[in-house]
Amino acid sequence: MQAIDWNNNVFSFLDQTLLPHEERFRDTTDYRVVAEAIRSLRVRGAPAIGIAAAYGAALSILSPALADTRDARHALDEALAVLAGTRPTAVNLFHALDRIRRSARNAASLQELRASVVAEAVAIHQEDIASCLAIAVNGAALLPDSCSVLTHCNAGALATGGVGTALGVIIEGYRQGKVRRVFADETRPLLQGSRLTAWELTRAGVPVALLTDSSAGSLLSRGAVQAVVVGADRIALNGDVANKVGTYPLAVLAHRHAVPFYVAAPRSTVDRSARSGNEIPIEERDPSEVLEVAGRRMAPEGVDVYAPAFDVTPNELITAIVTEQGVYRKPFRELAGSAPGGD
Amino acid sequence: MQAIDWNNNVFSFLDQTLLPHEERFRDTTDYRVVAEAIRSLRVRGAPAIGIAAAYGAALSILSPALADTRDARHALDEALAVLAGTRPTAVNLFHALDRIRRSARNAASLQELRASVVAEAVAIHQEDIASCLAIAVNGAALLPDSCSVLTHCNAGALATGGVGTALGVIIEGYRQGKVRRVFADETRPLLQGSRLTAWELTRAGVPVALLTDSSAGSLLSRGAVQAVVVGADRIALNGDVANKVGTYPLAVLAHRHAVPFYVAAPRSTVDRSARSGNEIPIEERDPSEVLEVAGRRMAPEGVDVYAPAFDVTPNELITAIVTEQGVYRKPFRELAGSAPGGD
Repeated sequence: MQAIDWNNNVFSFLDQTLLPHEERFRDTTDYRVVAEAIRSLRVRGAPAIGIAAAYGAALSILSPALADTRDARHALDEALAVLAGTRPTAVNLFHALDRIRRSARNAASLQELRASVVAEAVAIHQEDIASCLAIAVNGAALLPDSCSVLTHCNAGALATGGVGTALGVIIEGYRQGKVRRVFADETRPLLQGSRLTAWELTRAGVPVALLTDSSAGSLLSRGAVQAVVVGADRIALNGDVANKVGTYPLAVLAHRHAVPFYVAAPRSTVDRSARSGNEIPIEERDPSEVLEVAGRRMAPEGVDVYAPAFDVTPNELITAIVTEQGVYRKPFRELAGSAPGGD
Repeated sequence: MQAIDWNNNVFSFLDQTLLPHEERFRDTTDYRVVAEAIRSLRVRGAPAIGIAAAYGAALSILSPALADTRDARHALDEALAVLAGTRPTAVNLFHALDRIRRSARNAASLQELRASVVAEAVAIHQEDIASCLAIAVNGAALLPDSCSVLTHCNAGALATGGVGTALGVIIEGYRQGKVRRVFADETRPLLQGSRLTAWELTRAGVPVALLTDSSAGSLLSRGAVQAVVVGADRIALNGDVANKVGTYPLAVLAHRHAVPFYVAAPRSTVDRSARSGNEIPIEERDPSEVLEVAGRRMAPEGVDVYAPAFDVTPNELITAIVTEQGVYRKPFRELAGSAPGGD
């Protein structure tokens, strides 16, 4: 299952807002369509956002209407600015756009510029595919035998260019016979758990049970879960993790019940400029996402809304951060280096 | 606002499943309609369930078709059994039915039986009205000045015969100028927070902000809340509290952030036969409540569901239990007595 793809200078993406009812792919050569897709969560998940943005930037300089390198650089700058403004928290977005910007720097001709930028976007995608596979293997090694695993939101193939991060770990664990069952938080307000994670797991043949986000406390208190595995949208240098809102309460509950709490993410999710989670900007979503459910208004008029898209889990609650380069543990000093110290 | 009422041997209730879109009252003289209303959460909230069940039992012996006391006792037994089978967790239901059963014991004539049972049902209702008022005053006294309060589900007028338990405390705190703002968890799956609590608070003129249940961790970590106040469906003798699923995670988070966690409930919510929360039966709800949102299927076929209606908050996480007789604190020894020791 590939939710994003690039063929003959055309970007394709599965519109995730239509899942699980409809599997519709869209093709585009317009970076504005890519930006809109990211903003409206048609394409979502930190790694997938980075890849899509890179392809979007590439699209901006492929138009036959561009006369010369100067034109193309202007178009690229504009696209980079628009794409950077789509969503503020997933740092993979900014890493990818930085790489595209650097790849454009030394091109001498329009042809060279195009080739260089497209190659960089493809490289970002290919690296993510490889990262996902390595994360899956590194993470599955941590899971206990015969376990039930709880996850939140969707950190699967839909959220990446490859097999996923948290869900890659879980599905690999299932293939190895370690994971018996997955519990998936439905993940209000946009129900990525019900719509996306349950869809991916049923397609992969992995037994999955859905629960409302606030039922996780009951589940953990009954001893029904032996590991929690989630993805990340941005990781600070001290190991604090920004991820879908609701991750932090899970970490607090897992800690209370002595259940290991694993974060699975590529190195590109680490923000070297953020010393702690306090420095991670948290996106606020539109109030309508809380006030409405499946398009129907549920609350009366005159109510306010608190709708952060993400929360920050402090490093002390995280058992390990699983990356393609290995497994990091407290005090997470290796996050600042280029290679981890752990296994 | 009265969500349940009794006039001239007719029971009236506001159908809460239609809120906030429609305020429709239903009148009935059939206890089976009352049982169905409780089962389908048209009437809900532990105290309101107890009162409605009492009136339902009274309806069962008011039919002109009943020939004699024996007929009426038979009808009453049947009604008590049906009403007891509606929902398993709210202990107020069983307390109320026990009181009705006892009130019927010594009646010598059909007329006396009817008068005694109706009087008992009305007394249960009137006592709840008085309890709510006392709980509101006792609880408001605990709130700090100029605070924001977080609540979960609905423990308001809609959930009781009076001004509510948790929401009674909060609204009284607002009237006293102590509460500035209320944060209300939307409370999946049935959205009692969005549909009912937000509706009650806006009608009372209290500023309210809704949030998804899993955003409470973010809210508390930002220091935006100075007290959490919730209701209870059943309280064990050791102070463990069964309440709407999602209460336990809030208590864990409040504890972590040193925010006081108050439970407001009448004494009738204490189950003298349950020594701890382990002995409280937890209702499982229908999977469709999680799989569907606003009547629309959100999850793919082939997924399982974990859908407890309630969870248990251990006594150690509870700052105080506020009742009509006073405020109880750890180790909650007064729950077993007839009067509390606290202020």
